[in-house]
Amino acid sequence: MTKEEYMGVALSLAEATIGQTSPNPSVGAVLVKDGRIVGMGTHLKHGHEHAEVYAIRQAGKAARNSDLYVTLEPCSHHGKTPPCVDLIIKQNIRKVYVACTDPNPQVAGKGIERLRQSGIEVEVGIQETRARELNRKFFHFIQTNKPYVTLKVAMTLDGKTATADGDSKWITSKDARLDVHRERDIHDAILVGVNTILQDNPQLTTRLPQGGKHPIRIILDTNLRIPKYAQVLVDQQAPTWIFCGKNANADAFTKEYPYVRVFSLDSEQVELDAVLECLGEERIQSLYVEGGSTIHGQFVAEKLINECHWYIAPKLLGGADAISSVGGASPEKMSEALDLEFGSVKQIGSDLKVIARLKEAR
Amino acid sequence: MTKEEYMGVALSLAEATIGQTSPNPSVGAVLVKDGRIVGMGTHLKHGHEHAEVYAIRQAGKAARNSDLYVTLEPCSHHGKTPPCVDLIIKQNIRKVYVACTDPNPQVAGKGIERLRQSGIEVEVGIQETRARELNRKFFHFIQTNKPYVTLKVAMTLDGKTATADGDSKWITSKDARLDVHRERDIHDAILVGVNTILQDNPQLTTRLPQGGKHPIRIILDTNLRIPKYAQVLVDQQAPTWIFCGKNANADAFTKEYPYVRVFSLDSEQVELDAVLECLGEERIQSLYVEGGSTIHGQFVAEKLINECHWYIAPKLLGGADAISSVGGASPEKMSEALDLEFGSVKQIGSDLKVIARLKEAR
Amino acid sequence: MTKEEYMGVALSLAEATIGQTSPNPSVGAVLVKDGRIVGMGTHLKHGHEHAEVYAIRQAGKAARNSDLYVTLEPCSHHGKTPPCVDLIIKQNIRKVYVACTDPNPQVAGKGIERLRQSGIEVEVGIQETRARELNRKFFHFIQTNKPYVTLKVAMTLDGKTATADGDSKWITSKDARLDVHRERDIHDAILVGVNTILQDNPQLTTRLPQGGKHPIRIILDTNLRIPKYAQVLVDQQAPTWIFCGKNANADAFTKEYPYVRVFSLDSEQVELDAVLECLGEERIQSLYVEGGSTIHGQFVAEKLINECHWYIAPKLLGGADAISSVGGASPEKMSEALDLEFGSVKQIGSDLKVIARLKEAR
Amino acid sequence: MTKEEYMGVALSLAEATIGQTSPNPSVGAVLVKDGRIVGMGTHLKHGHEHAEVYAIRQAGKAARNSDLYVTLEPCSHHGKTPPCVDLIIKQNIRKVYVACTDPNPQVAGKGIERLRQSGIEVEVGIQETRARELNRKFFHFIQTNKPYVTLKVAMTLDGKTATADGDSKWITSKDARLDVHRERDIHDAILVGVNTILQDNPQLTTRLPQGGKHPIRIILDTNLRIPKYAQVLVDQQAPTWIFCGKNANADAFTKEYPYVRVFSLDSEQVELDAVLECLGEERIQSLYVEGGSTIHGQFVAEKLINECHWYIAPKLLGGADAISSVGGASPEKMSEALDLEFGSVKQIGSDLKVIARLKEAR
Ligand SMILES: [Zn+2]
Ligand SMILES: [Zn+2]
Ligand SMILES: [Zn+2]
Ligand SMILES: [Zn+2]
Repeated sequence: MTKEEYMGVALSLAEATIGQTSPNPSVGAVLVKDGRIVGMGTHLKHGHEHAEVYAIRQAGKAARNSDLYVTLEPCSHHGKTPPCVDLIIKQNIRKVYVACTDPNPQVAGKGIERLRQSGIEVEVGIQETRARELNRKFFHFIQTNKPYVTLKVAMTLDGKTATADGDSKWITSKDARLDVHRERDIHDAILVGVNTILQDNPQLTTRLPQGGKHPIRIILDTNLRIPKYAQVLVDQQAPTWIFCGKNANADAFTKEYPYVRVFSLDSEQVELDAVLECLGEERIQSLYVEGGSTIHGQFVAEKLINECHWYIAPKLLGGADAISSVGGASPEKMSEALDLEFGSVKQIGSDLKVIARLKEAR
Repeated sequence: MTKEEYMGVALSLAEATIGQTSPNPSVGAVLVKDGRIVGMGTHLKHGHEHAEVYAIRQAGKAARNSDLYVTLEPCSHHGKTPPCVDLIIKQNIRKVYVACTDPNPQVAGKGIERLRQSGIEVEVGIQETRARELNRKFFHFIQTNKPYVTLKVAMTLDGKTATADGDSKWITSKDARLDVHRERDIHDAILVGVNTILQDNPQLTTRLPQGGKHPIRIILDTNLRIPKYAQVLVDQQAPTWIFCGKNANADAFTKEYPYVRVFSLDSEQVELDAVLECLGEERIQSLYVEGGSTIHGQFVAEKLINECHWYIAPKLLGGADAISSVGGASPEKMSEALDLEFGSVKQIGSDLKVIARLKEAR
Repeated sequence: MTKEEYMGVALSLAEATIGQTSPNPSVGAVLVKDGRIVGMGTHLKHGHEHAEVYAIRQAGKAARNSDLYVTLEPCSHHGKTPPCVDLIIKQNIRKVYVACTDPNPQVAGKGIERLRQSGIEVEVGIQETRARELNRKFFHFIQTNKPYVTLKVAMTLDGKTATADGDSKWITSKDARLDVHRERDIHDAILVGVNTILQDNPQLTTRLPQGGKHPIRIILDTNLRIPKYAQVLVDQQAPTWIFCGKNANADAFTKEYPYVRVFSLDSEQVELDAVLECLGEERIQSLYVEGGSTIHGQFVAEKLINECHWYIAPKLLGGADAISSVGGASPEKMSEALDLEFGSVKQIGSDLKVIARLKEAR
Repeated sequence: MTKEEYMGVALSLAEATIGQTSPNPSVGAVLVKDGRIVGMGTHLKHGHEHAEVYAIRQAGKAARNSDLYVTLEPCSHHGKTPPCVDLIIKQNIRKVYVACTDPNPQVAGKGIERLRQSGIEVEVGIQETRARELNRKFFHFIQTNKPYVTLKVAMTLDGKTATADGDSKWITSKDARLDVHRERDIHDAILVGVNTILQDNPQLTTRLPQGGKHPIRIILDTNLRIPKYAQVLVDQQAPTWIFCGKNANADAFTKEYPYVRVFSLDSEQVELDAVLECLGEERIQSLYVEGGSTIHGQFVAEKLINECHWYIAPKLLGGADAISSVGGASPEKMSEALDLEFGSVKQIGSDLKVIARLKEAR
């Protein structure tokens, strides 16, 4: 195999773990000696050992003089586990192939430097694009201290998410709705406004045939209007965090729902900037915003979006008074619209799933 | 070549003329003798000779005993030109391959029957799907006496066609706007509401680098509010037809604009059903509805759509008050939405062009 | 439509006639006025009128001020028909789009010059690659006065065309054998050695479901050993031409088979160079060489090949003594092999059809 | 992820190790709990622990109640390592997904039965086709006790592997030759006839940029004519095994070359059947036959082939006396040829790589 192919194996390992390693990145490692794979490792969960450790452990004595292919620059600082560069040096690895450097500008390149100083050859940039794509949410978080925001919409072809009366059952096909559960599974948190709770009383959990991880459920609720019967309050299936304004009685609420975290902001309204900052402090790296229309409108108006997942059903509802996919207040000029770039378009069931990213994100 | 390939040549001829033969269908014909093409013919324009005539004329004496491949059942009635079946019989054609039968239930199969009665072998259904697709607008018209209606929308990803202030310049890219001119070129007529005239004062003509046919410009204007300066009134580049309600002063208007046709309906409002019936009587086979939002809403509400062309720009505008792609009044239930089926999706410039058809149309 | 698309229509017309216009090229023409096609024409057969004539005739008065799209530079000399440039000038065509210039270096550009001198705008090179590919055999002939030579082989995966005993029935599938008839249909002449006649006694005709043109059958037979019972002598289905050496008794043979043309060469052996020169004089533009092995060997040794059509069956025969696809005498060094370039590979039935072209031909 | 996707991860793990686990199969295992991967394991080398062991070890306590996805039925017998089914039962795995059952008819299904008896749910057949393809050589070996035989040929388009003088440098491009080294890397053994040694004196080792495993070099040499200077005798880079006939002086040879294994057969000639049987006893599962022509002829004549790798260069050599890709003696009838089926065709450098498999192998 070529070095690109060996790195491809390491990337496959990492890609299998997307969404389950947060707040750590997904990383895979492969050790190769004389054209044989002698160790493979994947980091599976925060707190667990790093990919390099598993690969070296499986290799045993064969690690000595082998080549390491790792999808991210090995760590050089003491975290929950000792630095991987020390292990690599100690094990007498011959050469290290790195897909991309650490996104943290403070430490980027330090691990590679340490390796080189101890005489280990390092080659950087093998399959870098694929490696950056894999951990794009992690990279964004490390560089901004805020979660990577994905807006999710399920709408008719004419851009409606519900009738004027609020009926939205069902816009999209079963297959498209299942796909949403796959996305929930790989996001740290999911966000909706309190109106969505009042309207639909959703569970906001991950329901996949083989199981899945529930995201933290985040509700924006300025005045703590969330009703007692809300599933997110009563089911205790996943953590529920509520953001409210300074005038809401957070203390009383907390007494009543001690298992719900309430974030009482300093402002009267729930400002998205403050919410994202707060979530960043809580190490939420990826946020899946499911609406409703007003919430989407706020994210768009404040340009706080990284990616859009648009499920479009082959339906025309009509209605100037129907609910629009993105609400809020219209800008004056079309030129003020938020510029995106289309990524992939695929058919899921009878619907289209259109993925777009922020244009500036390039 | 196989019979499918010879019919493919005849279909290519016909496809090159899409949009220019109305109210006639696009038809191509190929004469083959001993594996050589001895004649090719295409019907180019209403009033001109049929495809079969040109093919037979080019073949000359070689027509005798040759095989005819024709994309539509040859005509057997006296129209602007004598019946093609007579010519085929007279020329001693050996065998006739027909892609699909005449869509008019009154005459369907009659031409084929006449050919068979005079001893000519006929094989029907070669490449039928492609032949039906080619002339789908003509088929719809013949079977319903109403034009085939295509709704055209250029919107942001969140379903907006203009800001709350009505600004829509420019939602889509230059390439997408050029594509709209290609569609105008192949439609008999284009329809907008008077608000679009008041808002944008558009020319509604076909502007293509190599020239093109202007569609008839149809304005729905209940009270004849169209302003004097409207380009569609003053430029005289293409016919302008105006539909108004019975309370509008059509006579006065006609005196002022004698070159504009005014259709004064019996009802107070401009009913779409009546408009389409009227257009059918005028032999308008294909109608390209460009909006605005309220007009689109009427077409959707009355389920008078055959096809949708949706140009989606990679932009998020936001705004519950922005103009929605399809306006009017929302139904109560999502289940009342008009069901479509997605056809093709392609990228044009930076935009997506999504084509969908009415689900029942299958 | 764009100018590339209009030229595409003209090219489709021409492509439908590949193989039937020799010694003329395949040419298509389209007249466009105000974005409508007003005339289409195709040259169908040597001696018949040129594509431009049919297109202009169909256009009638609409030809004036229209644009002409033609796949080859219009002719400016008096041939079987008057020069097309005169007609174009007389008809007041506005602009002429030409895909490629005349391949004859003596007249290349003259037609275009004449048009420009009379004030007609000319644009050259629209879809030129496709136009050159279409008429590559014609271009080769015009530039060399020799036919374009295509070597055809049907062999097992290990390169055998027959067993040591000469059995070759059947190497390839029915579909692949049908494809050979399609190739015969579009070639002017087919060539085999007398051993193929002695071994298989083939008809060497075109047998396609919808009919086809028989190529001239050319037999290389130094000593006129062809047997009396040979189908190519007795069936009179297509012309048979025999090339023999100077020592063969051509006169006696000609007396016996007056309907067979015998070319008695000046040399003892049948030299391929002389054969191709002779065929060029007879205006044979395309030659399909079907073998056998020794004949193929001669063509390869003398590097007289333009294209190879290799039908490869999924079979291993084995046998150093089996008949090899290309026989004759081996060069000393592998570096003396004839260099090709692979074009397309497609599966036909259970076999592969590999097309390769001479590398120098680029 | 779906169960097919989890099995896909396990298969990716296994596929990364193709060629390095012999005589064991390539196997991957993934443990999943609540939609998270909690363990991944791959079997890397004979004697090392099985895939299931690594996966369970990585999972630690999380293994309990997790689901296991494994590409091959878990073992139930005591080999070099204790039976995996015992471990699975002991770890309280909840459900086991198996891609395909053990190929050994004596034990097939026994592991699954044991699991079910102890109350573990088992689902068999997830991604079975891909799993069988992955280990097709292993499956063949287990079922026949003989190696899976791949014939490799590098030839000109006309089926030649060398000129009449034996020159073959270079038929194929550098890229194609590199691909041969990739194949050597994943085969247990490589086989040539002594004439190839006499002609080319090849190293028959794996030379890849990132290193690779040398196959055992097997020489068929009836009379022990191999010369003293042969690289396979002197370089000691990889084991060399020689098969000779009963009349050769194997004892003397062994004295001279103690590090070379000599297999003296009971017959005068080296019979392929006996060679394959012998290799099977030595647990050689995959054999890459590189020629020469006569050796290939024997394999074809005795129908001892599973797969063919044909590198075809865009060259015509010509020559009935040139060396044919498959030599030996031709059968009488074409119908006696060995029937194959084409798999993939891809371009490597300037050459084609055609893969075909024995038709009966379906
Ligand atoms: Zn680390
Ligand atoms: Zn007619
Ligand atoms: Zn001409
Ligand atoms: Zn095991």
